[in-house]
Amino acid sequence: MTPLIDGLQYANWSEKIFRQMREGGVDAVHVTITYHETFRETVLVIERWNRWFEQFPDLIFQGFSAADVQLARDTGRTAIFFGSQNPSCIEDDIGLVEVLHRLGLRFMQLTYNNQSLLASGCYEATDSGLTRMGRAVVAEMNRVGMVVDMSHSGERSTFDAIDHSSRPITISHANPASWHPALRNKSDDLLRALGASGGFLGLSVYPHHLKGGSACSLQSWCDMAARAVDLVGPGHVGIGTDLCQDQPDSIVEWMRVGRWTKTMDFGEGSADAPGFPPMNDWFEDNRHFGNIRAGLQAAGLDRATIDGLMGANWHAFFDKSFGPLPAKTQLRQRAAE
Amino acid sequence: MTPLIDGLQYANWSEKIFRQMREGGVDAVHVTITYHETFRETVLVIERWNRWFEQFPDLIFQGFSAADVQLARDTGRTAIFFGSQNPSCIEDDIGLVEVLHRLGLRFMQLTYNNQSLLASGCYEATDSGLTRMGRAVVAEMNRVGMVVDMSHSGERSTFDAIDHSSRPITISHANPASWHPALRNKSDDLLRALGASGGFLGLSVYPHHLKGGSACSLQSWCDMAARAVDLVGPGHVGIGTDLCQDQPDSIVEWMRVGRWTKTMDFGEGSADAPGFPPMNDWFEDNRHFGNIRAGLQAAGLDRATIDGLMGANWHAFFDKSFGPLPAKTQLRQRAAE
Repeated sequence: MTPLIDGLQYANWSEKIFRQMREGGVDAVHVTITYHETFRETVLVIERWNRWFEQFPDLIFQGFSAADVQLARDTGRTAIFFGSQNPSCIEDDIGLVEVLHRLGLRFMQLTYNNQSLLASGCYEATDSGLTRMGRAVVAEMNRVGMVVDMSHSGERSTFDAIDHSSRPITISHANPASWHPALRNKSDDLLRALGASGGFLGLSVYPHHLKGGSACSLQSWCDMAARAVDLVGPGHVGIGTDLCQDQPDSIVEWMRVGRWTKTMDFGEGSADAPGFPPMNDWFEDNRHFGNIRAGLQAAGLDRATIDGLMGANWHAFFDKSFGPLPAKTQLRQRAAE
Repeated sequence: MTPLIDGLQYANWSEKIFRQMREGGVDAVHVTITYHETFRETVLVIERWNRWFEQFPDLIFQGFSAADVQLARDTGRTAIFFGSQNPSCIEDDIGLVEVLHRLGLRFMQLTYNNQSLLASGCYEATDSGLTRMGRAVVAEMNRVGMVVDMSHSGERSTFDAIDHSSRPITISHANPASWHPALRNKSDDLLRALGASGGFLGLSVYPHHLKGGSACSLQSWCDMAARAVDLVGPGHVGIGTDLCQDQPDSIVEWMRVGRWTKTMDFGEGSADAPGFPPMNDWFEDNRHFGNIRAGLQAAGLDRATIDGLMGANWHAFFDKSFGPLPAKTQLRQRAAE
């Protein structure tokens, strides 16, 4: 059978959720461990995960390589792959890329909505593209095997990242803006360029990214998924639910506001609806991936395409993305700089 | 042939020294990366090592397991294993033990001369033994596979560590006090207990630990080595040169004084001789291990004992020490607490 992989979750983790992952047959999840946290604060979160790995060794373990997805299947557990939604965790220090990769960080967004040291976020008025440090850090991420994730970045920055990165990048959790024109969703042009470069799109089920929001129908989502495969290319699309299960609203405030402003920013929400939006009824937690599979079948997608979307595509992407560049390629890359 | 392993060096690292390691046929070295540095400062040192690994991939690479000693031999390079001479790097946070182990820290001293959060150093007037945190951290080091090193600890603290640790500990760089009664050298009783517990002694060639100091003869050192094997047990003794090559005297001041006092502490030195002592003429750098081997032969040790001292014993100790405890043993250990 094909593996089941979710390309993005940020839950208020608990034994309950780990057990739901097992119930839902989820083999691997890319989990967000950090947003605006410094390096030291990020390490504290890793320490918390280490405690969970020690406490629940029959349910979860830390994933480092694509082979760990198979290990998860062989041992009936879920492999947890770490990612960051912002580069705060590397501070102003490119050496932390390799250190965090050693600690298991396999994805890092270059921005989270705002301008970062590396690139421009999708909420900035001006998108100035990759910065000097951004180009250096992308090359370093390429070298060690950390995936460039542009989910919350501006369009020009994302095109820059596609151009500059020597390895395929990802947008781990977003949908086509042509289906639902949210600021966080991506243009067809960008998604085509992403796919043409070997990059990867994880389709979101977070209500703000959905046509109709929390009331979006499964059929509408699955039709969108079929079109996304056409846009980005077969083999280059998977799921990145953006599931934020059991989080209190204080967390969405931290995600949006961090420590960068003293006033409230509602992000994708509004003053009337400042909290996490309610999930739609066909995907509320890790036990509901079967609904998505059934919906894709009902939408007429063939078996291989569905298997790819549900996890086989992410698995192949993990396989080519998480290891270091071969030394010879590194030398070529250095010569080209 | 048997591997050549040095159980402790803290040099002012450079391409020159890495090339001398290759000239001397050194397969693996336990290098000190940190004394009084905080966690973040320790990570900066790891970043510097990562640059050296990237710059000199034909000379050195980071060692994580005993198998890397064989890899070093197979590829004509030196495997570098990280260690700390003080627990400052874990601050007050037991979770940093696993994090630093993941980053490759394979040895940690519980103290460096002074009282630490974990135990008492050999320069304290009162040795109060393992602290509450010390007992917890030793258990955690046992769990993940980080070796407890008591080279700079007080005697009672060292006996406590031997008793409390579920895995063999080391004194990576010291000599018998019965040969040269320096404060840093160890009593015969302690060395016998160390060996009986499966622990390991690395013999130092740092002049302050030698009878006659910088003028100590090779023959005297080799006779001492033979007696150390009798004391600690065959298979449980190796070399830990404590070579501090090319270091400026400001470094020995940092080692002794850190940030813990505003007045000068001369440690093993004195106001008249505050700096690093000159090395003896038979061991000045990594090219001189052949002198030690020849000296041991001249002292009449048999081939197997010499091979053991030169590296085979450390190799076997690495093999049983650097991996995590099997899960079942962890459960037994937890039940026993």
